[in-house]
Amino acid sequence: MSEVKTASSRRPLRIAIFGFGTVGSSVARILTESKPEQLELTHVFNRNVARKKADWVPGSVTWSEDAGAVLASDAEVIVELAGGLDPAGAWVRKALASGKSVVTANKKLIAFHGVELERLAAANGGHLKYGAAVAGGIPVIPGIEHGLAGDRIERMEGILNGTCNFILSRMEEGAEYADVLKDAQARGYAEADPTEDVGGFDARAKLAILMRLALRAEVDPGQIVPKAITEVAAIDFSYARELGCTIRQIARAGRQIARAGKTNGALAASVGPALVGLRSPLSWSRGTENMVVLTGKYGGDVVFSGHGAGGHPTAVAVVSDLVALASGSKRVEIPAEKAEIGAEFEVPHYIRFLVKDRPGIVAEITAALAREQINIRAIAQKAGYPANALPFVVTVEPCKASALQRALAGIRRLDCMIAPPLDLQMLE
Amino acid sequence: MSEVKTASSRRPLRIAIFGFGTVGSSVARILTESKPEQLELTHVFNRNVARKKADWVPGSVTWSEDAGAVLASDAEVIVELAGGLDPAGAWVRKALASGKSVVTANKKLIAFHGVELERLAAANGGHLKYGAAVAGGIPVIPGIEHGLAGDRIERMEGILNGTCNFILSRMEEGAEYADVLKDAQARGYAEADPTEDVGGFDARAKLAILMRLALRAEVDPGQIVPKAITEVAAIDFSYARELGCTIRQIARAGRQIARAGKTNGALAASVGPALVGLRSPLSWSRGTENMVVLTGKYGGDVVFSGHGAGGHPTAVAVVSDLVALASGSKRVEIPAEKAEIGAEFEVPHYIRFLVKDRPGIVAEITAALAREQINIRAIAQKAGYPANALPFVVTVEPCKASALQRALAGIRRLDCMIAPPLDLQMLE
Repeated sequence: MSEVKTASSRRPLRIAIFGFGTVGSSVARILTESKPEQLELTHVFNRNVARKKADWVPGSVTWSEDAGAVLASDAEVIVELAGGLDPAGAWVRKALASGKSVVTANKKLIAFHGVELERLAAANGGHLKYGAAVAGGIPVIPGIEHGLAGDRIERMEGILNGTCNFILSRMEEGAEYADVLKDAQARGYAEADPTEDVGGFDARAKLAILMRLALRAEVDPGQIVPKAITEVAAIDFSYARELGCTIRQIARAGRQIARAGKTNGALAASVGPALVGLRSPLSWSRGTENMVVLTGKYGGDVVFSGHGAGGHPTAVAVVSDLVALASGSKRVEIPAEKAEIGAEFEVPHYIRFLVKDRPGIVAEITAALAREQINIRAIAQKAGYPANALPFVVTVEPCKASALQRALAGIRRLDCMIAPPLDLQMLE
Repeated sequence: MSEVKTASSRRPLRIAIFGFGTVGSSVARILTESKPEQLELTHVFNRNVARKKADWVPGSVTWSEDAGAVLASDAEVIVELAGGLDPAGAWVRKALASGKSVVTANKKLIAFHGVELERLAAANGGHLKYGAAVAGGIPVIPGIEHGLAGDRIERMEGILNGTCNFILSRMEEGAEYADVLKDAQARGYAEADPTEDVGGFDARAKLAILMRLALRAEVDPGQIVPKAITEVAAIDFSYARELGCTIRQIARAGRQIARAGKTNGALAASVGPALVGLRSPLSWSRGTENMVVLTGKYGGDVVFSGHGAGGHPTAVAVVSDLVALASGSKRVEIPAEKAEIGAEFEVPHYIRFLVKDRPGIVAEITAALAREQINIRAIAQKAGYPANALPFVVTVEPCKASALQRALAGIRRLDCMIAPPLDLQMLE
């Protein structure tokens, strides 16, 4: 960071916000109300400025619809809050290439291009900070960088998507998926096309970012195939409760124990709905809360929770990154290596079937599982459902998802199956 | 920080450990096993080195019983793990005065002298880091400095002492105080003289440190009068459960809403056993766990939990501070102002009496409370206790502790009182 930007010079850091939506206006609100002494909002870029302009923003701020002009201005830090890969990525690259620093909440950009962008920042004397990209207002990224870099983190489990958590924690109370989704959309918690959230893509990007910092593994997020929460039904919450569990969207990653001669064990990672025990902190999250559990070799479990989304919490992370930049604080260098997802979790699974009842179904299912060496743990069937659309549940002992998928590929072809079976990891 | 110490030069930071006890040997263990590339353990100072020397520590490390010689050595960072104000304070001052940096887990030293020591560090070009001083392996301090500096934190509640939490969470399961204390001492969780922990002095020091960073208030820890957990009895857990609560040692602080023309509202702070609702995260901590809940104006609640004590978790915080120093990361400058504890929490209270029964007791107690304008919320008396040592409980609506103390001063003089009443805050 060049000298003019450090705290010692006491000239405020000149800040341009790109994107005056929920988060962008919250950042401006905090800068205007709290007036951190080393920070000065100088520019706001947005399309259709006339519609966005807010009277509480100081008159000294330049509003602009011209991204290039703001990138060429004397603003020293670009706060990128537009999201998505384009054109946000182009703006960030241009800012970094010209020696400016960038603070962003853009998980997708950082998950797919973070390593390249950090190199670009370092090569040009600027900094790239993205504390807001994962878990919004919860300081997970600063916590890992500044407080856990001395540990060797072996695995992590997280609730990283507030939309999914809102939907699933409401379904736990008895609501149906479609109704809660509609409510989430009305409240602004879910997009008109909710695929990015409910499909697990948002959580996957955040998991990939955490894997680089916590597990020190640079992975291609595309290697993690997320499972959508859309197939989870009210009946699954009722079976889950019988098993002492509830259902949450869980993003998790871990290293297997390294084999002799290898420094690092193979990586496993997954994103999707999973059964979590009611005694696990992960089951306690409600509404749009986020939660991350990191397990270190030396420090054991550390849990972070709070508001992972929303304008104000995310803006807190952005402004905190700006305060750190103004203090001349550098990011802690955590070494990471390119890595493949080369392993699978071996965990118990919950499998819910929906069948047209006839004799022999359980025998056929258990035989198919046995052919893949998968052991049954329990079979449960609640009373009160019609024989022509009968749900029942099989739980199995720890097995790889790939073995289970092979077994289920045969099972779903049985004539009695009226819907594809739903299989969920059970966290233990 | 002088150039030779920054990451860019790639020469490892030379580290001297002062105090090779549980934490000191864990720090050496992590440095030896994990080999963070920018850190090199060069010296260990301890009394009676012959008894301490460990064969797994690299032969290149100098063991010494001469603090002055190690302070005069080429070690660049002193890791102070001796604890207490003296002689640890003298070593830290000497190290900082000579331009060295210091990493410490010493909450007492930082609570009482942190501001002065930070000035000394800054004046001589070194750094002072104390991430391990509060909540051991849980990155609360780095989280506040690097991830919440953009918020305006208004209040905090914490479980900051693992010994008290071990004792109280075991008493919740039915054990008696004296038995659990003995067990805690046998496991090394409590000192032979447990006053520092059970008396609340350890938690008070940690609270004062957090108040400076989170509430931006430099307070004299001596202004906070802690309440010991020693008077809490098994009967209190049973009454607490009837009220939907359990009991934990809670350290809390907050600002009242500022009056017109004032930037900051008056500060309140307290340390002692308190009733916490079973739906509050604070009630979920077990064993030696620590937990901190910070409430920000913009970001709402953020919760941190994990292992707040023990050699390895505390060593993680120490090594993380060392990694940050080696990366050239500066502490984020969070402005703070000298402040007095000028307010009291107004919260409901739980008051447990132990009386020799006779007619009129409740009338006399309620009259004494009424004279201080304190309203009764509920009165509870469990069956099955002898009339000559009868416990019963009164809960009262939110009131100041000082008003309650005035009422109790009269009540405890009643002839029927066979022990001083126990009053506990009820967190809502």
